[in-house]
Amino acid sequence: MRKLYAIGIGAGDPEHLTVQAIDRLNRVDVFFVLDKGAEKADLVRLRQEILDRFVTRPKYRVVLAQDPPRDRTPVDYRAAVADWHAARAAIYERMLLSELGTNDSGAFLVWGDPSLYDSTIALIEAVLARGNVEFEYEVVPGISSISALVARHRTTMNQIGRAVQLTTGRRLAEGWPDGVDDVFVLLDAHTTFDRYVDEGLHVYWGAYVGTPDEILLSGPLTSALAARIRETRAAARERHGWIMDTYLLRRPAK
Amino acid sequence: MRKLYAIGIGAGDPEHLTVQAIDRLNRVDVFFVLDKGAEKADLVRLRQEILDRFVTRPKYRVVLAQDPPRDRTPVDYRAAVADWHAARAAIYERMLLSELGTNDSGAFLVWGDPSLYDSTIALIEAVLARGNVEFEYEVVPGISSISALVARHRTTMNQIGRAVQLTTGRRLAEGWPDGVDDVFVLLDAHTTFDRYVDEGLHVYWGAYVGTPDEILLSGPLTSALAARIRETRAAARERHGWIMDTYLLRRPAK
Repeated sequence: MRKLYAIGIGAGDPEHLTVQAIDRLNRVDVFFVLDKGAEKADLVRLRQEILDRFVTRPKYRVVLAQDPPRDRTPVDYRAAVADWHAARAAIYERMLLSELGTNDSGAFLVWGDPSLYDSTIALIEAVLARGNVEFEYEVVPGISSISALVARHRTTMNQIGRAVQLTTGRRLAEGWPDGVDDVFVLLDAHTTFDRYVDEGLHVYWGAYVGTPDEILLSGPLTSALAARIRETRAAARERHGWIMDTYLLRRPAK
Repeated sequence: MRKLYAIGIGAGDPEHLTVQAIDRLNRVDVFFVLDKGAEKADLVRLRQEILDRFVTRPKYRVVLAQDPPRDRTPVDYRAAVADWHAARAAIYERMLLSELGTNDSGAFLVWGDPSLYDSTIALIEAVLARGNVEFEYEVVPGISSISALVARHRTTMNQIGRAVQLTTGRRLAEGWPDGVDDVFVLLDAHTTFDRYVDEGLHVYWGAYVGTPDEILLSGPLTSALAARIRETRAAARERHGWIMDTYLLRRPAK
């Protein structure tokens, strides 16, 4: 039986790899790598460094997969993502059939944790649901971008006994979530924290967390700090050609 | 300068340890272990197994610390926790001063991730704030109980583009959180999911996740499944003398 692994490789620091992830890396015949274009060449390189450092098994292959094009400004966000997933599933089904022998193991290496705002598990389930290729699969958890962020800021996700929300920039733009004081914002290309300046919030922001390029900024979310994060973010994005950032907005609980 | 580490050791599987955590374990002179009584002797043993397996440094000490007593049924939950933290800070301050030489390193090993519903970071900050002992400290992120849970269930934390809430049993008892379809419930001794049966939810429940005693149950949250989780939980708690469980309640997004 073919076997697939979705392996969380942590938020950017190769030392985030778990013993379990390293064990699974060493059972893999073929690593499927999503080529997202020159923009993220740094990430592809970092992934290769992880393989070079941790895989002791002599023979493995890396197969580059081209993601289908994606509508970045859809009217219906969820429908656009679903369409994109369907197109991807067809591509990956062909790839699994052509690249993996019936007793081979393949893996997707996932930044952060495969369970958090990542499409790999949905992709694997979609391929399985098409019914044309049989395989077993295992998910290996990883250090998430939000765990890495708060560890570097030496703060907690939650205040004592309080709830925490994980959300997207898109949703935060619709308003502050009800009933929570701590909000992690992922996938935010539009510095949505700008809408919440001078409201008594504290922000913990980080980019490239865990890598040598890590930038951390935190403090009361004044318009001055918001501007500083915005400018730092824009300059870093310009310099690297891409950015991976996350932040926590905290309203001190009464 | 004294150095302290708050090291996330994952959700129960020793293979959740990261390369970074193992590196830090090997810099530690004294491990501070919170003795929470016979009830959790299994956890103390598991922690010792982690040290035996991963620490190659020949000399280290394990110091057992007795937590102060805690009011488990307070009128004011947050005030009671704050009082307890203050009492703990005084105990740990004395312990750090008596057990750590001025150039020694100490560590707290934290189940799961130190940032999620754990008091170690607050404790360290409280000791620092008292101003009687100086030290540097570092937080090492770990695989959280919720990452481990969804990995074993091979599902994601979020639905596409949706928000996720992390909360406590106590808060869930006050009502379903506004604006979210995916709710992780931690620290729930009262099977609060019972209040949400037959409402079209899906539950992903797990106990002792990542250990040989792992139990996973999932499916549409009917009264039958709720009863099964309740009975399984009670029997396991009886058998082990303690339980560590978590669950995700999911309302399929429209």
